[in-house]
Amino acid sequence: MANVAIIGATGYGGVELIRLLQNHPEVRLAFLSSESYAGKRISDVYPHLAGVEAVLHKLDPAAVGECDFALLALPAGKSMEVVPKLLQSGTRVVDVGPDFRLRDPGLYPRWYQLDHSQPQLLKEAVLSVPELHRERIKAARLAAAPGCYTTAALLALAPLVADGLIDPADIIADGKTGISGAGRTALKLPYHHPEANEDATAYAVGGHRHMPEMVQELQALTDAEVRVTFTPHLVPMTRGILLTAYLKPLPNVTPDDLRASCERRYANEAFVRVLPDGQWPHTKWTAGTNSCFLGVGWDEASGRAIVVAALDNLGKGMAGQMVQCLNLMLGVDETTALRVPAAYP
Amino acid sequence: MANVAIIGATGYGGVELIRLLQNHPEVRLAFLSSESYAGKRISDVYPHLAGVEAVLHKLDPAAVGECDFALLALPAGKSMEVVPKLLQSGTRVVDVGPDFRLRDPGLYPRWYQLDHSQPQLLKEAVLSVPELHRERIKAARLAAAPGCYTTAALLALAPLVADGLIDPADIIADGKTGISGAGRTALKLPYHHPEANEDATAYAVGGHRHMPEMVQELQALTDAEVRVTFTPHLVPMTRGILLTAYLKPLPNVTPDDLRASCERRYANEAFVRVLPDGQWPHTKWTAGTNSCFLGVGWDEASGRAIVVAALDNLGKGMAGQMVQCLNLMLGVDETTALRVPAAYP
Amino acid sequence: MANVAIIGATGYGGVELIRLLQNHPEVRLAFLSSESYAGKRISDVYPHLAGVEAVLHKLDPAAVGECDFALLALPAGKSMEVVPKLLQSGTRVVDVGPDFRLRDPGLYPRWYQLDHSQPQLLKEAVLSVPELHRERIKAARLAAAPGCYTTAALLALAPLVADGLIDPADIIADGKTGISGAGRTALKLPYHHPEANEDATAYAVGGHRHMPEMVQELQALTDAEVRVTFTPHLVPMTRGILLTAYLKPLPNVTPDDLRASCERRYANEAFVRVLPDGQWPHTKWTAGTNSCFLGVGWDEASGRAIVVAALDNLGKGMAGQMVQCLNLMLGVDETTALRVPAAYP
Amino acid sequence: MANVAIIGATGYGGVELIRLLQNHPEVRLAFLSSESYAGKRISDVYPHLAGVEAVLHKLDPAAVGECDFALLALPAGKSMEVVPKLLQSGTRVVDVGPDFRLRDPGLYPRWYQLDHSQPQLLKEAVLSVPELHRERIKAARLAAAPGCYTTAALLALAPLVADGLIDPADIIADGKTGISGAGRTALKLPYHHPEANEDATAYAVGGHRHMPEMVQELQALTDAEVRVTFTPHLVPMTRGILLTAYLKPLPNVTPDDLRASCERRYANEAFVRVLPDGQWPHTKWTAGTNSCFLGVGWDEASGRAIVVAALDNLGKGMAGQMVQCLNLMLGVDETTALRVPAAYP
Repeated sequence: MANVAIIGATGYGGVELIRLLQNHPEVRLAFLSSESYAGKRISDVYPHLAGVEAVLHKLDPAAVGECDFALLALPAGKSMEVVPKLLQSGTRVVDVGPDFRLRDPGLYPRWYQLDHSQPQLLKEAVLSVPELHRERIKAARLAAAPGCYTTAALLALAPLVADGLIDPADIIADGKTGISGAGRTALKLPYHHPEANEDATAYAVGGHRHMPEMVQELQALTDAEVRVTFTPHLVPMTRGILLTAYLKPLPNVTPDDLRASCERRYANEAFVRVLPDGQWPHTKWTAGTNSCFLGVGWDEASGRAIVVAALDNLGKGMAGQMVQCLNLMLGVDETTALRVPAAYP
Repeated sequence: MANVAIIGATGYGGVELIRLLQNHPEVRLAFLSSESYAGKRISDVYPHLAGVEAVLHKLDPAAVGECDFALLALPAGKSMEVVPKLLQSGTRVVDVGPDFRLRDPGLYPRWYQLDHSQPQLLKEAVLSVPELHRERIKAARLAAAPGCYTTAALLALAPLVADGLIDPADIIADGKTGISGAGRTALKLPYHHPEANEDATAYAVGGHRHMPEMVQELQALTDAEVRVTFTPHLVPMTRGILLTAYLKPLPNVTPDDLRASCERRYANEAFVRVLPDGQWPHTKWTAGTNSCFLGVGWDEASGRAIVVAALDNLGKGMAGQMVQCLNLMLGVDETTALRVPAAYP
Repeated sequence: MANVAIIGATGYGGVELIRLLQNHPEVRLAFLSSESYAGKRISDVYPHLAGVEAVLHKLDPAAVGECDFALLALPAGKSMEVVPKLLQSGTRVVDVGPDFRLRDPGLYPRWYQLDHSQPQLLKEAVLSVPELHRERIKAARLAAAPGCYTTAALLALAPLVADGLIDPADIIADGKTGISGAGRTALKLPYHHPEANEDATAYAVGGHRHMPEMVQELQALTDAEVRVTFTPHLVPMTRGILLTAYLKPLPNVTPDDLRASCERRYANEAFVRVLPDGQWPHTKWTAGTNSCFLGVGWDEASGRAIVVAALDNLGKGMAGQMVQCLNLMLGVDETTALRVPAAYP
Repeated sequence: MANVAIIGATGYGGVELIRLLQNHPEVRLAFLSSESYAGKRISDVYPHLAGVEAVLHKLDPAAVGECDFALLALPAGKSMEVVPKLLQSGTRVVDVGPDFRLRDPGLYPRWYQLDHSQPQLLKEAVLSVPELHRERIKAARLAAAPGCYTTAALLALAPLVADGLIDPADIIADGKTGISGAGRTALKLPYHHPEANEDATAYAVGGHRHMPEMVQELQALTDAEVRVTFTPHLVPMTRGILLTAYLKPLPNVTPDDLRASCERRYANEAFVRVLPDGQWPHTKWTAGTNSCFLGVGWDEASGRAIVVAALDNLGKGMAGQMVQCLNLMLGVDETTALRVPAAYP
């Protein structure tokens, strides 16, 4: 049994981690941190977790450092303060915040308005989508789970870029997210129910922070220049990301080539499924799970390829992926505690 | 490992049973029936169940009769046709349809517009809310899970009626349900998304079929006459039942008496939780689970007691309760395959 | 043309007033106040009001005092500060806040945690549901529009209480509201989209502030004691109130008597419609309008009468009713600027 | 007063037409047709229209032929049967179905699986977006309102294509629609509330019928070849279309050029508003109205321009636009009966 700490346990990512790990046969939840609710029990904050009698603590690096693993779900700039101490204690880290996702420290001032205090750790950190970086994750001390949109985009695009089937400089990714992507503490007007309900809108046009993550990871798969136009949208649902990618196939590439590339890549993956021709993924299929569904198509009139990815922003886009990484680092079956289909409808 | 058949596997109740039983360590899904999709795989109907490679069959009593258990989720009048054959084969049955819920066959013409063809089985059938009928369920050949509203009402009211704390002739139950309660095949205008979304309405006022179930079971707990005014409402969400009961406490009964009665009754129950004073249940806490939360209060100005119950109509109100019954009949830990909190939010 | 001020113009009630009054042929919007957005144009706050080029000001009693009418939508305690000055200037007031709804100043400490600074004005203020208090409103200097739940309850119950058909001491009112009832500035966790969406819950059980309003106004219609058990619920929609009342008919009263009482009372009302037997109101029918639909029924098994009212909490429950009052005070057709059916669906 | 017939009066488009025209000072609703509800009153079908005491009739070309105008909202293939008779009677037609949108009769077999029986009328029919075709609409006998997505796409793209600022062969349009776009009679599983709610999905990928309309009308604005990749998505709301267009600016074109082009084109338009830099449209702003909001932006990293359009699929996307066309054909102020902002929130 590994002792695991969840740092940021009362956010939506944290509570999803608790749900998933509660029944994990190889994990003991040894430490739950929350700055706002320290001293309370998790069930005081989330009464539906009445069976989990854990008490919340302020983040204490010494206590966390006694754990085998720490799962961090913190705002930008917070992980970099604590991760060095944890690594020094021998605690391995899965961080779902942005602090260790970008390899180039020079990107942090622009995208996060902060200077990176631990640039040396950026070299070590492993951007962690298990389907793409499995072996490195197994050995990682510091796994950085990417953003929810990034995960969707990478799963949709990595095979096609890696196989050289599309023009990597002409990628358009249109994302739609449920409102839980805004987190629990962001009590802002756009997420106020009467405002968000029955509304659709674009945001962060031309400047969403997940774009440089997408480019960084896709660029690692090709020598040609990668450029991604990414526009996220809020749609009125709680969970789910749907990402529709518009791609320019390279000459002589056929629709079958695209599908074959995706199918080949994910043939042995437990959590990614390529749908048959003509079927398109629904976010509802993924709610509460670590799964991602991909649809692959072709617009004859314009010659564009279209790939659609659906996942749960709190599942494969966050907590599910963290548990999958943890499983790899633990050396147990990668699907442990994740083999549950969506509750439908 | 028990061989279990699910009859009506492609309805919302059926697919929830598949989800729950898929990871049940003592159960093998041996037979899935669907009249509309026979010959297809379950994943053709529900692509998110891609991992469950089961094929759907038309209901074949002989094949089902070889199973140890049959879980039935069929429309009114259908279970009574097949249950006798199953029992004869030695197959034990958990039926979530209405055919074996009412002990008085004379009620079927009025409430279901049909004559009961197996009145003798009504005597044997066990109306099955494990918290109320545990021992009888363990031994049952034929367990009849009550309606979703009935389950909420019984869990909210049984302690107070049994302990003689309220006037059983003056019970008002106001229910609110998500739209999945209408099932998957009922493609009717009131459940069309643009109609149901952003709307609240009452229905079946003065005549909902779950009312006689409530009365029958509460009447078994008291010599005084039981009368329940029950009004269900549709509210625009997928899952969840919230039932608010307005009660007249008997003379000298205090708010503490009511709370104590509920707490005592459910102290050792895994799935029913009585909230502390001043806290009220949310249906969201129960989504996808077998849990039920109860809030107990008092309206000083009018002297009425108020009990609010929240559960998932497809969970404790349907498939979850069926699995709980199955566990009792199997003789395994009652919480097997049900120890999972809600995915929140 | 009357000069009209809207005080609290950027709340949901204020913006609904602007929408309704914009096309009112007898009204000029002369002053819009907003404490948070003073100096901005209304279209800076609500871009969809791009055609309304009004500038927002801090509340300036002198400026408002030059208007013929002031429509106030302010939090508790704020109206009582400014209304005396407005009345002194000869400005007539329609206030939708709670400051002038309760006739007994002694109720304010308990229900609003404040001492009333203008108790003498409580005698003059007219609790204003036009269908019940039309003549007094016409002559009023200070009209106090009741709460949204109160309006629904009064329209549903006033005929039956006034006609002596039900026991006024045994009234149960179960309310369901959309989230816009929480207002725009209340950025609290329960109204955060991921929390409120897909959830139903009770709140303020045994202690909602609209209850004493209901009792006060119903008590004015009967010598017998009035007692109302009122429980409000949040359901996941933006607009709409559905109120289900459970009533004890007096001896020898028939279902037809109840229906006849309601039909008689509202026969000549433009905004209240009694549905035919067996039909029940939908909140969707009222969205964006000043209408209220009533369903009247009877639960034979228990002998309870059931009346269901549907209205829009921001329409007949707030801004619509204010405009209806303004029309009465102006002496114009009561339906001016309100003759628009709901946008359906 | 013009006599106006609404053909298909009980669909969502028809009922929206009734709402809008009810208060139109120059229009008398002379004939309402409904095949399913002939003989009933409109208020039997839509109780919220209780004030509109019109009776529904089966479509009778002779009776409609006595009207000055007929507004048609019929399924594909139905308008072409009746329009010739109406035109012969001197009745002018606004048709929102697809029968007269495409100028090339050869497109009907492919996109609608039917042969066009009135190809000669396709030459006369005017594809009618008032902002683009105002003068022709004024004189038209047969105005064909385009599809809801088409309207959004044309309003977003026409200025940029006409001004030669973008490559018309490289247009990507990602559409998101509320479920009311499916209509009222399409009681299909994807629109069943429990399925559509809390889900996002793509549909008709590479083959939606509105694409050839977009291409036809944009092609009329440029000599260069137009190609549009259009992918529609269902998102869980009732009303609203959000269309995000990804465009390749031609060499030396600046962001300011794009914005200036849109602003210039719509400077004097009542219903189209170009938002300031950095602001993006919300569908909620348009609910129940004839307005369209445009946001214009630029993705620096990729050099793509992005234009987002929001409108109400039943408003500017359907009934609102039909009324705007009718106003033009009537020769009255184009905004008559349409000057109402959205009910917010």
